[in-house]
Amino acid sequence: MKLPITRGPRERRVPEGDDKPRLVCPECSYVAYENPKIVVGSVVTSDDGRVLLVRRAIEPRRGFWTLPAGYLELGESPEHGAMREAREEACAEIALDGLLAVYSITHISQVQLFYRARMVREECAPGIESLEVRLFAWDEIPWAELAFPTVHWALGHFDAARGRALGQPFGNVEGGPPDPVG
Amino acid sequence: MKLPITRGPRERRVPEGDDKPRLVCPECSYVAYENPKIVVGSVVTSDDGRVLLVRRAIEPRRGFWTLPAGYLELGESPEHGAMREAREEACAEIALDGLLAVYSITHISQVQLFYRARMVREECAPGIESLEVRLFAWDEIPWAELAFPTVHWALGHFDAARGRALGQPFGNVEGGPPDPVG
Ligand SMILES: [Zn+2]
Ligand SMILES: [Zn+2]
Repeated sequence: MKLPITRGPRERRVPEGDDKPRLVCPECSYVAYENPKIVVGSVVTSDDGRVLLVRRAIEPRRGFWTLPAGYLELGESPEHGAMREAREEACAEIALDGLLAVYSITHISQVQLFYRARMVREECAPGIESLEVRLFAWDEIPWAELAFPTVHWALGHFDAARGRALGQPFGNVEGGPPDPVG
Repeated sequence: MKLPITRGPRERRVPEGDDKPRLVCPECSYVAYENPKIVVGSVVTSDDGRVLLVRRAIEPRRGFWTLPAGYLELGESPEHGAMREAREEACAEIALDGLLAVYSITHISQVQLFYRARMVREECAPGIESLEVRLFAWDEIPWAELAFPTVHWALGHFDAARGRALGQPFGNVEGGPPDPVG
């Protein structure tokens, strides 16, 4: 359930001298300039090639499986953000191998950067936002229980680049998720 | 000159239930969650290989040369943002060839995506934020008058990848700009 916003910038109007509607606070006239957000995440494998997934303990999509990923923080590089998310959500230390994909989810103004990574140690455990963490062999991945389309995309692109050096990052998959069970 | 901020979120404190200091409005207690910003730009060449630069009409670095680049807008993909910036700043229609570089400027919380691009038509003109637009042959580039370090980096990386397909995007240059006059 979403409660109505009762304070801060919440009225949408075009501020003086601007040309686009923005969220304005009716009490103090503060204008909130909204910007697209950056999500950073990774497809992480163990030494034997299994893929690390975490089961979400929080909404949206509580109980569904996802890749360790989240919002980039202020003052953080995307690489460090991806490593932090793996640590926070899966208690996993990872080493990045390259930029696997850049997805752009325009209807929610997100740019998502997914890295290919390996576990530095074969240790993982649920973080505070996770119900469960598991290493899945490729044919065990719960495709029907993935939290978001871009999780599907990133796994498909990981599979497409398997065993070779990464080139240009993959981009959005037109017409829905790729077929990752190939 | 920077005027003091007199309304809206401007006091830095840790909101209840949070673990990091945020900007809070002392009048209405609204919390502004700041996020890193995404800059999109491109290294654009004409058919004869000259590089498009624009001279800034606005601060910071008014009068200095830069690549067409700017903040990604809400609901916009990075690719469309880079094309829009070339249109706005240089009245140039461009076609993107690939992702040249991803730079992360952590002290100002920016992630910059630079594309390699070509002009669709050999036409350009200063936009409202530009004093001048010019196509530079490589040995004419005004290295000492470039606006920002990442302009230097992107031109250096463009040169490093000249004549070949783009692979993994380049990243930050450690220890300052690359030597682009090679
Ligand atoms: Zn207010
Ligand atoms: Zn206020």
